[in-house]
Amino acid sequence: MDITTLMGIVLGAGLIIWGIVTSGDLGNYVDVASIILVIGGTITAVLASYPMEKLKKTLTITKIAFQNRSHSPTNIMKEIIELSSVARRDGLLALEEAGNKAEDEFLKKGIMLIVDGTDPELVRNIMETELTFLEERHADGRGLFDSIATFAPAFGMIGTLIGLINMLQGLDDPSTVGPQMSVALITTFYGSVLANAFGMPISAKLKVKSKQEILMKELIVEGLLSIQAGENPRIIEEKLKTFIPPELRSEMGNSGEGE
Amino acid sequence: MDITTLMGIVLGAGLIIWGIVTSGDLGNYVDVASIILVIGGTITAVLASYPMEKLKKTLTITKIAFQNRSHSPTNIMKEIIELSSVARRDGLLALEEAGNKAEDEFLKKGIMLIVDGTDPELVRNIMETELTFLEERHADGRGLFDSIATFAPAFGMIGTLIGLINMLQGLDDPSTVGPQMSVALITTFYGSVLANAFGMPISAKLKVKSKQEILMKELIVEGLLSIQAGENPRIIEEKLKTFIPPELRSEMGNSGEGE
Amino acid sequence: MDITTLMGIVLGAGLIIWGIVTSGDLGNYVDVASIILVIGGTITAVLASYPMEKLKKTLTITKIAFQNRSHSPTNIMKEIIELSSVARRDGLLALEEAGNKAEDEFLKKGIMLIVDGTDPELVRNIMETELTFLEERHADGRGLFDSIATFAPAFGMIGTLIGLINMLQGLDDPSTVGPQMSVALITTFYGSVLANAFGMPISAKLKVKSKQEILMKELIVEGLLSIQAGENPRIIEEKLKTFIPPELRSEMGNSGEGE
Amino acid sequence: MDITTLMGIVLGAGLIIWGIVTSGDLGNYVDVASIILVIGGTITAVLASYPMEKLKKTLTITKIAFQNRSHSPTNIMKEIIELSSVARRDGLLALEEAGNKAEDEFLKKGIMLIVDGTDPELVRNIMETELTFLEERHADGRGLFDSIATFAPAFGMIGTLIGLINMLQGLDDPSTVGPQMSVALITTFYGSVLANAFGMPISAKLKVKSKQEILMKELIVEGLLSIQAGENPRIIEEKLKTFIPPELRSEMGNSGEGE
Amino acid sequence: MDITTLMGIVLGAGLIIWGIVTSGDLGNYVDVASIILVIGGTITAVLASYPMEKLKKTLTITKIAFQNRSHSPTNIMKEIIELSSVARRDGLLALEEAGNKAEDEFLKKGIMLIVDGTDPELVRNIMETELTFLEERHADGRGLFDSIATFAPAFGMIGTLIGLINMLQGLDDPSTVGPQMSVALITTFYGSVLANAFGMPISAKLKVKSKQEILMKELIVEGLLSIQAGENPRIIEEKLKTFIPPELRSEMGNSGEGE
Repeated sequence: MDITTLMGIVLGAGLIIWGIVTSGDLGNYVDVASIILVIGGTITAVLASYPMEKLKKTLTITKIAFQNRSHSPTNIMKEIIELSSVARRDGLLALEEAGNKAEDEFLKKGIMLIVDGTDPELVRNIMETELTFLEERHADGRGLFDSIATFAPAFGMIGTLIGLINMLQGLDDPSTVGPQMSVALITTFYGSVLANAFGMPISAKLKVKSKQEILMKELIVEGLLSIQAGENPRIIEEKLKTFIPPELRSEMGNSGEGE
Repeated sequence: MDITTLMGIVLGAGLIIWGIVTSGDLGNYVDVASIILVIGGTITAVLASYPMEKLKKTLTITKIAFQNRSHSPTNIMKEIIELSSVARRDGLLALEEAGNKAEDEFLKKGIMLIVDGTDPELVRNIMETELTFLEERHADGRGLFDSIATFAPAFGMIGTLIGLINMLQGLDDPSTVGPQMSVALITTFYGSVLANAFGMPISAKLKVKSKQEILMKELIVEGLLSIQAGENPRIIEEKLKTFIPPELRSEMGNSGEGE
Repeated sequence: MDITTLMGIVLGAGLIIWGIVTSGDLGNYVDVASIILVIGGTITAVLASYPMEKLKKTLTITKIAFQNRSHSPTNIMKEIIELSSVARRDGLLALEEAGNKAEDEFLKKGIMLIVDGTDPELVRNIMETELTFLEERHADGRGLFDSIATFAPAFGMIGTLIGLINMLQGLDDPSTVGPQMSVALITTFYGSVLANAFGMPISAKLKVKSKQEILMKELIVEGLLSIQAGENPRIIEEKLKTFIPPELRSEMGNSGEGE
Repeated sequence: MDITTLMGIVLGAGLIIWGIVTSGDLGNYVDVASIILVIGGTITAVLASYPMEKLKKTLTITKIAFQNRSHSPTNIMKEIIELSSVARRDGLLALEEAGNKAEDEFLKKGIMLIVDGTDPELVRNIMETELTFLEERHADGRGLFDSIATFAPAFGMIGTLIGLINMLQGLDDPSTVGPQMSVALITTFYGSVLANAFGMPISAKLKVKSKQEILMKELIVEGLLSIQAGENPRIIEEKLKTFIPPELRSEMGNSGEGE
Repeated sequence: MDITTLMGIVLGAGLIIWGIVTSGDLGNYVDVASIILVIGGTITAVLASYPMEKLKKTLTITKIAFQNRSHSPTNIMKEIIELSSVARRDGLLALEEAGNKAEDEFLKKGIMLIVDGTDPELVRNIMETELTFLEERHADGRGLFDSIATFAPAFGMIGTLIGLINMLQGLDDPSTVGPQMSVALITTFYGSVLANAFGMPISAKLKVKSKQEILMKELIVEGLLSIQAGENPRIIEEKLKTFIPPELRSEMGNSGEGE
């Protein structure tokens, strides 16, 4: 469980509520019609922007931002180096058993391709195409939250414009001007909060997570191709270490370079 | 029929009208001169931005956003794998009959190039150039809606400026200030709605659709070149599967990797 | 004559004037000092941004947006296919006469390079460098109008700030506040109109025109190199058709693929 | 110690405080609730945007902006040229001793790879992958400050909206309108200062520092590969000089080209 | 001396002053504290954004925008074609004397590399690395002015916020509201002017100048490599002509292609 996304969003919402309560009345900020307009408008715009099959995945994608799915890169690295020792000692076919035990589906698929004696060029081709499309699917998922961050303030402004136009039409009773403008501004407030305390942070977190996963899969591709090429486990280790930040390398028993 | 674009836009418009009606009088929001200024201004700016022959295609392009044209990628994939079996069994010339039955024009063209014995390098060259220009034509079509999303708020603001300047010139009767400002803001309101509930979602939807179509055509190119190279249908299947998301792969009878 | 640019700009200006007249007095919108400030300021900023020799070409470039210069791509295509037949029948030297008759300078230059027996690699090199720089010169020209679209609203805002600061210094007579603010807003109005009804559409149109011209010249390069390589006219036709949209291909007598 | 970051930020803060003091009362600008809302909101949004392990490095990264870590490129260059003389005279193995004395970890690692007789292609591969990921880690670090520059003004605006909505709800006592709006604006003020006098300059400085470090490491890669290829020290010097600006080249005893 | 930068900036400043004088009192626009805050704030933010050694070069870089340094490309082209004739007639060594007379340091360096019998691949490598870093140094210099264009309006807004907050704290005397707001707006005015009439135009001019210089140096690289390859002066001329716009080609005695 990636605690920071949840923590950040919950604390952010808490802070805003605290900010309201210390200076005014929370009740003034709850306006059902405004909530429906801003959230509903954002949803309809997102609905019009994406095909149904992408929208169905939204929940799955949102979950990623809150999960801590990625295996540690050092573990994956150790696993690959072990595989390379096995392959060196007992041949590539000996990887089949290890492959069946691999937890990562991508690693498993790669091992199976090698065990099947697939041409190295084709192995790289298949695995890199897989990566390209994985990256694109990640970007699509992120796009949903970018859309929220774009449409929420826009519908907030549309709501405020509606409020202002209404208010200006009936300026007869000056005592209602204040509360009416206050309500008009609430949609802008909702839009800003939705964009900055929800849409943008989740999009940012999904981007970091996507990068990490892609990186780990690039490490797997590089590692498997080196195994298939029969390279020395020590050289493979040296190669793979470049994929991880220096401070993690020491875990592997070798002093790293300062950031 | 891609229901989400239509649904999104209709629901979005409905929500905004609901938002107006619950808090004021819809009549205040209908100002013919403002509609003419914002929509007309946007149209003239788009007219000045694109040559006639692109503008003529606007309707065709708009339709794409509302249609559900794309064949399922798994169907195309099955079709190609079948073609590869035919080619393996009966030779490349046997593809001619299958080619004539192909629904997708791009697939048909590719099969015909192969049947004609065209050099593989040239087949790739021709099909990829075709793809590049298809992508560019899609981007051009999208550009129209991006322009609407840019120009509509701009002409909305120009209309509001006109309203404000008029109002400020005649401040003698304070009782007219409110309604005049109200009318002035209506163009900004129109511009915002046009951009956020129409222009941007359709541009986004066209982008997703373009990506899907390009992807499916890349799958066709990859598949046909593999057929021409006489590759094993099982390897071709493995290759093509990387083009589709894991959850669709199981339909082909093979467990996929988690997103 | 590309009628849409002129039509778009004239109609846009007309609409804005109509919008003013229906709701107020056109006279209020004519403020010589404001016009000088916004247009003058934009011109000085553009002047400071570009060297003299680029500025001298502004008029030439502006003309492109209003002209309909490009030969039809199908005509160029037919011309090249004819050239390929001539070359096949009578040898490359026979192209000299055809070259002299070619209207397009770029095509003529390419034919001459081939007739001179220039190495194919060098022909491609020379023609593609030519294209690269043509593209860059086009981008430079477009940059002028992008600058106008950037600087006009900025100087509009500077003018409004000047008006506001003046007005706020002398708030003694409340009856002058309205007209003074009205005048202050006029520069913002000018800046918006200049950017959205002139600068941006022309920049957009120049971009489309540049793309069309580059595309046609890429078609010429591809065609000439195929002629030099002695390729079959039918294959050349097939290759070149990928450069044009499907709906134009039928003019060449072959069914195209749907957009 | 890179004095300019600290100086710039301290002087900037000083200037703003001076600006406040000369025209008003500093006390009006200290509002604890506003500080908590803007800084807290920014922190929670950043927290939600990045995984814990990146956030832990924030301090380390921030330090880089204030430090003057990079060895002079001319020193590194001299070191490499010396190494090339040693390698020419005594062979590649003689570099081991020099490598142990090298201060730069990256240089040391490169020398060790060469001494180990690693294949040149692999040396380049390993060192360039290292560089790619170093660059990406730098970009990640910078991203934190870009996020601050994005979220601070957003939470500033959210705070101001809260203040305005509260104020407008209770317009009864006109004498409190001014101070209430004043307090409402303070969060926007905090957000602007945080973004422009802290987040953006540090991000910019980190970008420059990253570029310098990457450049120096590219110089090391180029130099070591030339040493491994047994190139002439004079040619190596000529090559490496292109990596540094002309005015630094004269230090190496050769007249440079004007900027 | 590139007169347009200076002219543009001076005329722009003049126009703004004229705009002030025709409608108000220039004295109202001179507020020492505001000047210190906006210019000082911009300087401190730029100071924090760049390391000292870049800042020291600011003046040198600024001068470039006002100078007319570049030799005419046709002159450089003629010089290279002459060199190619010399090399063809008397051999590459005969270039030494010509090289010593060359005004352009980059050309001189290239000639010396050729005279020294450096490997063509290495000559290209050295000269293109030189170009890459020259381009990057130019971009760095431009970045300073982009920073000014970013920070000046930001500090202008910060100043205005300070003025507004102060004013709103003391609303007791309505007669001071106007002048106080007027002063508050002055910093926004300064920031806008600094960005739009100084920072952005100089950055744009530096970009154009950088492009021109890079282009001329690419022409030199291409020319020198052709000389070293012993190519025919006529072919070299044909190649180099593609680097310059058609209207300059006629100066070389050959009809060009229309823009």
